Amino acid sequence: MIVTLAGGVGAARFLEGLIHVVPQERITIIGNVGDDTEFYGLHVSPDLDIVAYTLAGLVDTAKGWGFRSDSFHCQKMLETYGYRTWFNLGDRDLATHLFRTEQLRRGKKLSGVTANIISRLGLDVTLLPSTDDPLQTHVSTATRLMHFQDYMVRYQTKPKVNRVIFKGAQSAKPAPRVLQSLMKADGIIICPSNPIVSIGAILAVKRIRSALKKTEARIVGVSPIVGGKTIKGPADKLMKSLGTEPSAVGVAELYRDFIDTLIIDKVDQKLAPQIRSLGMKTIVSQTLMRTMSDKVHLARVALSEIKS
Amino acid sequence: MIVTLAGGVGAARFLEGLIHVVPQERITIIGNVGDDTEFYGLHVSPDLDIVAYTLAGLVDTAKGWGFRSDSFHCQKMLETYGYRTWFNLGDRDLATHLFRTEQLRRGKKLSGVTANIISRLGLDVTLLPSTDDPLQTHVSTATRLMHFQDYMVRYQTKPKVNRVIFKGAQSAKPAPRVLQSLMKADGIIICPSNPIVSIGAILAVKRIRSALKKTEARIVGVSPIVGGKTIKGPADKLMKSLGTEPSAVGVAELYRDFIDTLIIDKVDQKLAPQIRSLGMKTIVSQTLMRTMSDKVHLARVALSEIKS
Repeated sequence: MIVTLAGGVGAARFLEGLIHVVPQERITIIGNVGDDTEFYGLHVSPDLDIVAYTLAGLVDTAKGWGFRSDSFHCQKMLETYGYRTWFNLGDRDLATHLFRTEQLRRGKKLSGVTANIISRLGLDVTLLPSTDDPLQTHVSTATRLMHFQDYMVRYQTKPKVNRVIFKGAQSAKPAPRVLQSLMKADGIIICPSNPIVSIGAILAVKRIRSALKKTEARIVGVSPIVGGKTIKGPADKLMKSLGTEPSAVGVAELYRDFIDTLIIDKVDQKLAPQIRSLGMKTIVSQTLMRTMSDKVHLARVALSEIKS
Repeated sequence: MIVTLAGGVGAARFLEGLIHVVPQERITIIGNVGDDTEFYGLHVSPDLDIVAYTLAGLVDTAKGWGFRSDSFHCQKMLETYGYRTWFNLGDRDLATHLFRTEQLRRGKKLSGVTANIISRLGLDVTLLPSTDDPLQTHVSTATRLMHFQDYMVRYQTKPKVNRVIFKGAQSAKPAPRVLQSLMKADGIIICPSNPIVSIGAILAVKRIRSALKKTEARIVGVSPIVGGKTIKGPADKLMKSLGTEPSAVGVAELYRDFIDTLIIDKVDQKLAPQIRSLGMKTIVSQTLMRTMSDKVHLARVALSEIKS
């Protein structure tokens, strides 16, 4: 079993390559729930859905989230009822949130509902939320504390972040099968996701981080920072404002307590010695994923490291 | 203040005429909630919405319910998640149910949410649900007891009904302002709605029926049965199977304890003496509402009876 830790768009693109190389039944994805929140009374799990929609071939590839060719008629009407609709939820997308919310209200756990969604979308991967307990990523700015979605979507990552808080992380327990899959994995891949808020929110569940330290499986990560910049999202900005160097070296520092190998982009080749000096193997490869063959290539590089 | 008792499509069409003749601020509508139920975890109030959408000029006039030109993308996707989607909810329509459901979950009463919806849709009428308490119309058939929506929409009124049960009616209290508006009305109109399940579910709230008997306001009804048949819906069928004559006479019998005047259609002129003998005034008029001028005419006939 190949186990991956995944955030949103970057992870989903990497995983698209992985399912071309490894049978879906052999892939377990531990997904980020720190971005989860409620809109219009519905439980929305942005990162889990990005992964599911992408692997099911349903995602809006231009945006990286939501359904391809979705309409926004419900959302437009919600404005009439006074809702602020800065978080875009398409009409087809709403079906997922309605289903999830109803199941949760009936007492199902997020892990169970997620498995059901994956299966209904025709997928055979295992997608596990990091935890079934409430865990929300908040960021602290000069003026206030806000949910990550407010920072990310509503305020377009403009406020300067002083601190990231994973609300609930202290008491959050890993979802069923998470620890077991990490301990028994043939290999673990940290997808190219935001190391602070996406992978960071997964690692904030303490028993997950300690399992990564304990497991005998080899752990390989893909740096989401290329040439000092992030491909998508605010990873570079957040690293900088939190005092971590916004580079592959910074990523290596964040993961150094559990990672065996870090894959960095060709443009960062000069950083390889410095990363090696942190005690991990470093592989230089093309990590930008423009085409499916880029994705498959990167998956193969990561896999070769696990199997070696 | 003109107070009306209203079900769904027939009432909404009548009320369209009424708001052309009487300022909206002078109209109070007491609406049926017996048809309310949950779909996909959302609280749906079909009759309240039909009235609101119709008066706001938003209704799909061909169907009589839902939004004009609505799309059904969410519903189609809900099938993927295993939902049976026999009750059609359009994407724009969903916004109303999301708003209502979220407000109810926050502890608001249905009457408060309904007032908010009416105002958000730009209307000045007062729409009151008959009760804020749970009251559900169920029908008993040879094989089982089912919610009215199952009978009406899912099974297309095919099963023979032995009995109609208003679940919760025993303890349901009239919503705020309902009794007061009936007692202080300048006149009361029973819209041409199903006397068994639409008006019947309102009358099932006991203090409403007794207020109708006590009020000094004149009460005029419009028979929804024309030539022994209903214009829309299963009123004739239900009356027959429950032992009431499916005719304007049957309607008169159902309302005879509180009504002053019944307006019947021209085609039923021959029934007028029989209805008069039940102790109420009877007016013969055109009651079919094909055009706006038909609706306005019928509203004027009803109003003249109240003011006389």
